[in-house]
Amino acid sequence: MKLLQPIQINSMTVPNRVAVPAMVTRLSGEDGFVNANVIDRYVRYAQGHVGLIVVEAMAIHGSKSGPLLRISDDSFIPGHAELVKRVHDAGPSKIVPQIIHFMKVARSGWRQTIDQLSLHDIDQIVEQFGAAAARARAAGYDGVELHSAHAYTLSSFLSRHNKRRDAYDGRTLEGRLFMFGRVMTKVRQLVGPDFPVGVRFLAEEAIKDGYALPDAQRIALRMAQMGVDYISLSIGGKFEDAIHKPGQPLYPYTGYSGDRCMPGDGYPALPHVHLAAGIKEYINGKGYAVPVMSVGKISDPADAERLLQDGKADMIGMARQLLSDPDWVKKVEGNRADAIVRCIYCNVCKQLDENFKLVACFLWPKGAIQAPQEDLAADRPRWPAAQAALKATLKEGTVQLAWAKAEGSDIIGYDIYRAEDGGSAGIVEAVKAPKFTDRLVLGGLHYTYYVVAFDKSGRHSPPSNAVRVDMPMPDFTRPARESSHA
Amino acid sequence: MKLLQPIQINSMTVPNRVAVPAMVTRLSGEDGFVNANVIDRYVRYAQGHVGLIVVEAMAIHGSKSGPLLRISDDSFIPGHAELVKRVHDAGPSKIVPQIIHFMKVARSGWRQTIDQLSLHDIDQIVEQFGAAAARARAAGYDGVELHSAHAYTLSSFLSRHNKRRDAYDGRTLEGRLFMFGRVMTKVRQLVGPDFPVGVRFLAEEAIKDGYALPDAQRIALRMAQMGVDYISLSIGGKFEDAIHKPGQPLYPYTGYSGDRCMPGDGYPALPHVHLAAGIKEYINGKGYAVPVMSVGKISDPADAERLLQDGKADMIGMARQLLSDPDWVKKVEGNRADAIVRCIYCNVCKQLDENFKLVACFLWPKGAIQAPQEDLAADRPRWPAAQAALKATLKEGTVQLAWAKAEGSDIIGYDIYRAEDGGSAGIVEAVKAPKFTDRLVLGGLHYTYYVVAFDKSGRHSPPSNAVRVDMPMPDFTRPARESSHA
Repeated sequence: MKLLQPIQINSMTVPNRVAVPAMVTRLSGEDGFVNANVIDRYVRYAQGHVGLIVVEAMAIHGSKSGPLLRISDDSFIPGHAELVKRVHDAGPSKIVPQIIHFMKVARSGWRQTIDQLSLHDIDQIVEQFGAAAARARAAGYDGVELHSAHAYTLSSFLSRHNKRRDAYDGRTLEGRLFMFGRVMTKVRQLVGPDFPVGVRFLAEEAIKDGYALPDAQRIALRMAQMGVDYISLSIGGKFEDAIHKPGQPLYPYTGYSGDRCMPGDGYPALPHVHLAAGIKEYINGKGYAVPVMSVGKISDPADAERLLQDGKADMIGMARQLLSDPDWVKKVEGNRADAIVRCIYCNVCKQLDENFKLVACFLWPKGAIQAPQEDLAADRPRWPAAQAALKATLKEGTVQLAWAKAEGSDIIGYDIYRAEDGGSAGIVEAVKAPKFTDRLVLGGLHYTYYVVAFDKSGRHSPPSNAVRVDMPMPDFTRPARESSHA
Repeated sequence: MKLLQPIQINSMTVPNRVAVPAMVTRLSGEDGFVNANVIDRYVRYAQGHVGLIVVEAMAIHGSKSGPLLRISDDSFIPGHAELVKRVHDAGPSKIVPQIIHFMKVARSGWRQTIDQLSLHDIDQIVEQFGAAAARARAAGYDGVELHSAHAYTLSSFLSRHNKRRDAYDGRTLEGRLFMFGRVMTKVRQLVGPDFPVGVRFLAEEAIKDGYALPDAQRIALRMAQMGVDYISLSIGGKFEDAIHKPGQPLYPYTGYSGDRCMPGDGYPALPHVHLAAGIKEYINGKGYAVPVMSVGKISDPADAERLLQDGKADMIGMARQLLSDPDWVKKVEGNRADAIVRCIYCNVCKQLDENFKLVACFLWPKGAIQAPQEDLAADRPRWPAAQAALKATLKEGTVQLAWAKAEGSDIIGYDIYRAEDGGSAGIVEAVKAPKFTDRLVLGGLHYTYYVVAFDKSGRHSPPSNAVRVDMPMPDFTRPARESSHA
């Protein structure tokens, strides 16, 4: 599999094509120091053989914020050095920190924008990026990633919403790119030519009057021209369409652009791969081979492999899927893809982040702050009397499923598999209690359901009995009456 | 070319695969009657050999609104009959009206939503759709199209934002589909099995918590199951993210979903064709051959043909491109694709609609209310002294172009062609005065420009001289100083 082949990124040999993009964990304190929980989170990915681990965004400056890692002065270096050592001790994974500058947001809904920055402020941010990158190198990280995505400072310069009218002029592509050029120049100067410098930026802003693929292709080209060593993409996640909750600072993933950033279960698989493909095709066409990472609801190993084989991506980024199962790569290596705990894109992790709570996965055992270790010695969950007695009832355009509880040690939930009209079965939901209502069924089709129980270590039961449901077409000739369903 | 082959839609033989989707014209009065300007608009498409002409949305009910066509009682039939006759007299084009129900919007920003409708109100809307469709047949239209897209009533039932909790329950797919089912059943009952009934709906809502492709596939399948004769797609255009201008009723194309509905010049060509392709693949896979129309920045005949050849669409819808040049099909038929007046997606037409002004094209002669007829006898525009003396100047990350005015009768503008880095040249902008500043150029690339003048009948000059510009890379080591550009 191409997925499992190493990829060379400047001086860094990444052991496979799988990366975990930066994800907020809310595991650090307000002090910004690396702590044991933070280390455990990233070691877990290394134990699972994730090729490239990008550590959650850490601030290059001292501005106030909630719990957030920092790399804004040398006192933070030892903590990072310890994190790097622990990850390297766990295996061949490479680890880079994502470094971020952000601006002020107030509980009133007010936020600082880049047109309010003086040229002195900007010079200072350039210096801060350089210094933070140098600290990343000093801490032993394998490279560094510049956060130039979502609602934050560097991304705001790239945006079509950039309102500056000087050298950083938002009306010209070069004006929008000038800040990135200065930062990259400074960073390269301080870390040297051999230290991998990656960048994450938006393939689409996904906001009104924002930029789309054509600008993103040219932004990526500039990054390639300047010797960026890998390009990681994201979509949306902007302040412009964020929904302000009274008394809370703006959270840039609450609007539609937030939906596109972390597409939920209503989106198809791979909704954004055409954007990475379009960017890769464009820069490759100009003679640059900088690896491009594709992201967005990629979770099936066959899909990931196909993207690489078809030349639509050089690397595969999975945030939510690797949160739910950091052993994804290890299971693929061991031909145990069926043992992967598949992300259901319920976005509970997103909601936890939004509410400033420790970011965990809905599929983990209740209260767990890290992904469980698979317990291969444990009994696999099983169904009582060799089957689950799964039953389906039709009610008002829905299918209501119920089944007997599985047996085994510490059963924590059930994956609901559904095949529509004789198609292939896929997980449509995961639940904790033995019942589920499917509201997205269509009359005239038949559905086959089965459920699979999982325990606290992510071990799965055999499939339950399968039930087939033939959904009737509604009667459209009959008007609905008050207080009753069709 | 497959593009020029007829397609059978129920009893209607559409002479080619090109359709003009419904577009507001603001040509009618508040009385809602067809008038001479309205007739001229649609006859113009027939003269240009557009296969299927969809007449702008016309109200099935009497609710107050601005200027808008009506088909809400029999008094409107003679006007429509006259429109149909005039279009049929002009050639083999087929013509169908788009019929719409919309709800109340107030200048305060308040709007009526479907959860405020009583079951009696709903029954009445069902009856109104049926009666309007019957009137369409009586007027001699070749079919009828149900408006189930954008911010309007039928679309609001299909939406994931549907807040009803009865037979039209927004939490279930069947609940969301029940209204469409009732309307389609009633319409079919009244127009008979042989009268073509098409529908337009959203392939993606493009709003927070809106639906995406998986729901759209199943909505399309239901439409196929119910005997819809063609499916026309659109994207976005919702009230949920519309921006309220004080004192104005909400206009559903002002938010990001409006950008996606009519993607402007910042978007790549064909940004939405994967959605039509995904829907077509899904319903074809279930055994339904209902034609699916692809839309969104399709303007190049080769692109349109490729979509049909690759099985990604059955028909091609072009609104803005056919507004700018209704003779698109005729020119393709005559192997004169280079004479097409190419839409530049400047969205001046959209702004006119938004401001309740007569919808015209920026590329038409000033003051024209219809697309000009190509005057083949007129001298073609030409350059003085055999060339245009096009000159380019670099300034602050932009390319500034200026050239001598073209000669000829009634020159009205210039298309700016640009080739980036030796690639193929395409129109990046059209301007009325002989100058242009290109702000979307990237240092390190070279650009070749030429301009083509056009006159009031859309006739083009030969290309001007070409100029090549080598954009330098900016100096990122130098901080910017106050009051100066980089």
